[in-house]
Amino acid sequence: MPHDCSFVGEILPSDQISFGDAERENHAADWWAGEVGIGVVPEVVVWPESTEEVAAVIRAANEHDVPVTPWAAGTSVEGNAVPKFDGISMDLTRMDAILEVRPDDFQIDVQPGIIGSEVNEAVASHGLVFPSMPSSADLSTIGGMIANDASGQQTVKYGEVGDWVLGLEVVTGEGAVMTCGSRAVKTSSGYNLKDLLIGSEGMLGVVTRATLRLDGLPEQKRGGRAVFADLDDASEAIYDAVRSGVDVAKIELIDALSARMANAHLDTGLPDAPMIFVEFHADHGIEEEVAFCRSIFEAHDVQQFEVGDEASAAELWKIRDELGFAVQGYDPDLTPMHPGDVTVPISEYPPLVRYAKELGEEYDLLVPTFGHAGDGNLHYTVLVDQSDEEMVERGERVYEAVLERALDVGGTCTGEHGIGMGKQQYLEREHGEVAVEMMRRVKRAFDPNDILNPGKMFPETAEEGGRVRFEH
Amino acid sequence: MPHDCSFVGEILPSDQISFGDAERENHAADWWAGEVGIGVVPEVVVWPESTEEVAAVIRAANEHDVPVTPWAAGTSVEGNAVPKFDGISMDLTRMDAILEVRPDDFQIDVQPGIIGSEVNEAVASHGLVFPSMPSSADLSTIGGMIANDASGQQTVKYGEVGDWVLGLEVVTGEGAVMTCGSRAVKTSSGYNLKDLLIGSEGMLGVVTRATLRLDGLPEQKRGGRAVFADLDDASEAIYDAVRSGVDVAKIELIDALSARMANAHLDTGLPDAPMIFVEFHADHGIEEEVAFCRSIFEAHDVQQFEVGDEASAAELWKIRDELGFAVQGYDPDLTPMHPGDVTVPISEYPPLVRYAKELGEEYDLLVPTFGHAGDGNLHYTVLVDQSDEEMVERGERVYEAVLERALDVGGTCTGEHGIGMGKQQYLEREHGEVAVEMMRRVKRAFDPNDILNPGKMFPETAEEGGRVRFEH
Repeated sequence: MPHDCSFVGEILPSDQISFGDAERENHAADWWAGEVGIGVVPEVVVWPESTEEVAAVIRAANEHDVPVTPWAAGTSVEGNAVPKFDGISMDLTRMDAILEVRPDDFQIDVQPGIIGSEVNEAVASHGLVFPSMPSSADLSTIGGMIANDASGQQTVKYGEVGDWVLGLEVVTGEGAVMTCGSRAVKTSSGYNLKDLLIGSEGMLGVVTRATLRLDGLPEQKRGGRAVFADLDDASEAIYDAVRSGVDVAKIELIDALSARMANAHLDTGLPDAPMIFVEFHADHGIEEEVAFCRSIFEAHDVQQFEVGDEASAAELWKIRDELGFAVQGYDPDLTPMHPGDVTVPISEYPPLVRYAKELGEEYDLLVPTFGHAGDGNLHYTVLVDQSDEEMVERGERVYEAVLERALDVGGTCTGEHGIGMGKQQYLEREHGEVAVEMMRRVKRAFDPNDILNPGKMFPETAEEGGRVRFEH
Repeated sequence: MPHDCSFVGEILPSDQISFGDAERENHAADWWAGEVGIGVVPEVVVWPESTEEVAAVIRAANEHDVPVTPWAAGTSVEGNAVPKFDGISMDLTRMDAILEVRPDDFQIDVQPGIIGSEVNEAVASHGLVFPSMPSSADLSTIGGMIANDASGQQTVKYGEVGDWVLGLEVVTGEGAVMTCGSRAVKTSSGYNLKDLLIGSEGMLGVVTRATLRLDGLPEQKRGGRAVFADLDDASEAIYDAVRSGVDVAKIELIDALSARMANAHLDTGLPDAPMIFVEFHADHGIEEEVAFCRSIFEAHDVQQFEVGDEASAAELWKIRDELGFAVQGYDPDLTPMHPGDVTVPISEYPPLVRYAKELGEEYDLLVPTFGHAGDGNLHYTVLVDQSDEEMVERGERVYEAVLERALDVGGTCTGEHGIGMGKQQYLEREHGEVAVEMMRRVKRAFDPNDILNPGKMFPETAEEGGRVRFEH
């Protein structure tokens, strides 16, 4: 029986609540869970407009034992924000204000619902930038990025989103308001709850304010495209560039299959060959860095390496940002099984790319690969006809084999998309029993009644499909 | 009555145990706690040589309800590793091996007892470096740096020690062995226990292995000294350099009083004036960066700015590294009250430096200030005659006033030395009640019997001097 959520009417005005089907269904699908029909429809969607309202809803949810699943832009790809046990979907997108910009300290305070690119628009006139965001920065919210510990193309130079978060205001699973971090750029004060909360996928608390650190915009930018004869050359060139310390701001691998899909779907006219898209940022001496990179690419038989200014590179990045859609839209009969997103040490990157390709051939499946290669982050997509059981099974084997290989070589089962509902079975495989037990205890510390986003991340238990009822 | 620790003889061979006074007293004093006579002497010192031995001692300590205080090099300055409740001092310095160097991945695996500078010696031949360490890197261990979330002169460019830790093996408070993080340079997998454990001051677990990320050695280095007519000019010049995005690898403020103390104690021949010590790292274009910095210093009336190669700068850094000792040794009648180590947003740095100076004059005390200015990190030392009660009281007022001011402007009560026993009364002031309650719960999650380094960090309770007995 679904949870009775009528009590929200006592807390919020009616224009911040919807029991309507359309809104509820909108909050039951992200970029993956919708496709594969995983997760459930919440009973109600609420739009709090203040920290106090977030806290009041969560406190009441504790009283009524109703799950609350925080919701941002719905751009996650592991079902992270899709409810598993109905209850309340808490949509934070109306809390989207810029609270303060402190350009002299390279800092900005924002509410969680602000879209990533809006932060950059707000600080550009000060010559500043929030440098590390996912490719979906035009659509995704800062709060969602923090909850997923997101990262992206520029992580190779600037680190993850979380590395640029100085402080947070958070409502805990019991509805208490806490702050962590500070406005200082470093601290050794107390346990580091801030970095614990970053990436906790809305299971430990709801972020209601974030203090972000900004960087100065680089004086010089160059970007371009390198075309290789084969995929091995391209992935080895990336490995060599990273190992040699080339200072790249982005370095992305695109295999020939992904290029063909982009051409078919986006009419991009890319060569039918493996490519590297690359960007450089510097305050001076950028041509020397480009030349250094070129010398390494030439050692790996680059066929063509065109580098231009920021504007000429922008077209390439537009293509790169839409690559995921191109893969999804390539063939109406074929859908992606899961979002493949593993990260390995850079020396393991070329063999992993090769392995994914070989598996695709062995199992006769389309497996386009691309991603933030400089971090050793491989995005691979196994395309299958969902109505063909045998094909789905083959696909599962390919998907899992790459993931297992990544873990075997010391990598992670998810570089940037989190565990959500998609990777629960890999958590213990990656971290071991003791660490997962510690994670459960941390969950209990912040959310003793298992109200926030229940059923996610931890391996499913037989009893309740992952909703762990803690002993008190 | 002291704890009966004789059970350690059943776990470790006799050459890994000492009940002798000399060793026990050696483990009852760090660079601060010894001076002020805070903390107690442990009943026994043990030197485990493997993860299994660490775990076995901690498991037995749980059975016998005996505190275990992890010990590294004793170079902390807040009594972090000095026992508060006797029991076992667990000295990790015999676990000091380099386990594996993976130069192509810019990674090294080490045991916790290795001295920081030894890591750099081991990787230099590969052109690599562990770039962010405290000034005590020749004496302090990697494990101690991780436990304290240490940082140092190069943090302004390279971040904190913790930013370069990819993975940890840790023995929990119950003696279970867990791993966290991975060899991948980024991950969104599970709760971020790694960064929670970094800086937890040996209260949540004992680090038994660390995977560190390395950086390439820069191709170019320059360093030098800028002399200013007054302290305001110097601190404003630093603020302006940081705000303008000058790419410095180190930027340290030294006030005239510290310079005089260095001259008296170390015979350094520094000018009697406020100074900035600065260093630049780059792969190319370093002269442009130096020129950019010079133009900013000139706008703040720099009297003299000499920049030379790495070797010529090394002498300056030797002075800087020993400044703490110079301050301590300046006058045998005067001892430092507490290590003052606050960090504020960079715009608040010049007024804070000014405030510390004004307080020194107002209360007629010597208050030398220096520190990692580019991070807004101020080290200030209030010197008092400990036998003069009235002077000690004045000193306390100055010490606290600076600290309160740092917190008032959004900073932290400890930039790099942790809470330990020295700053327990500021934890709740900085983080608030809810966050401290969450920290207590996290402590309970990792160490339910309060075995590891009990009595530290949390505000003292009336009952047991901070040793919180958790309900089960």
